[in-house]
Amino acid sequence: MELTPDWVVGFVDGEGCFFVGINQHKEMTTGYQVLPEFTVVQHERDISVLYALKRFFGCGVVRRNHADRYAYRVRNLKCIEKVIAFFERHKLKTKKRVDFLKFRKVCLMMKEGKHLDKEGLLRIIEIALKMNTADRPKLLEIKKKITRG
Amino acid sequence: MELTPDWVVGFVDGEGCFFVGINQHKEMTTGYQVLPEFTVVQHERDISVLYALKRFFGCGVVRRNHADRYAYRVRNLKCIEKVIAFFERHKLKTKKRVDFLKFRKVCLMMKEGKHLDKEGLLRIIEIALKMNTADRPKLLEIKKKITRG
Repeated sequence: MELTPDWVVGFVDGEGCFFVGINQHKEMTTGYQVLPEFTVVQHERDISVLYALKRFFGCGVVRRNHADRYAYRVRNLKCIEKVIAFFERHKLKTKKRVDFLKFRKVCLMMKEGKHLDKEGLLRIIEIALKMNTADRPKLLEIKKKITRG
Repeated sequence: MELTPDWVVGFVDGEGCFFVGINQHKEMTTGYQVLPEFTVVQHERDISVLYALKRFFGCGVVRRNHADRYAYRVRNLKCIEKVIAFFERHKLKTKKRVDFLKFRKVCLMMKEGKHLDKEGLLRIIEIALKMNTADRPKLLEIKKKITRG
């Protein structure tokens, strides 16, 4: 299956997800790690589309998500950079672009190491909180703990 | 917002729905009417994309679906023909294409008036039952009633 850039933009406008996860991690100075993730989830009947996306971006993995659903997932920062570069050249048309721009901002901050201190981490949490995909209760709980700590 | 054919294919591969509804209708000889429908539903934040689809196909309507969700909807048969012609030229890449082909088959049968007699209606119900979007319990109930009647 051969994908074109415009098809990929349309499909991701519909099915893509730009997510910034923040998880506890003992080895980080802040106690937390930042995990940006780009995913596209499909029913197993369309797993071939997920592999086509993997070939298109030249990286990422296809994994079972849950039950009969599979995900094309990009977590590696080098690969996320490729994905970001693609969507900078080929603009998303839905409001998913707003989430993409916040995701991009977080990834740029990570590249500068901003996620490694408390101040930067709090700024990243503020950005993540404004994303459509945010797990707000979890992020607010983490924010409270960091501000206290 | 300017849409390209490939973007539309990608977006519909993700968000589009080809549906064949069958409803009771006293004025039809069979007692039922066949209602093929192409829809794309979005959160109200992306209503502009729905209007862009309406401009792209040159027909259809944008209506509130439920709560904060809106739909671009094509029910008019002349307009459905335009939509079908587009997806014949520009192939869907996901298994949604299988549903599209069944939808197309039903619309061609309707053009030939096959939905107006019991035999044709039963054939249409058999096709609709195999679609991913099918309301199977409802269709099976209707099939039982028609076969009995």
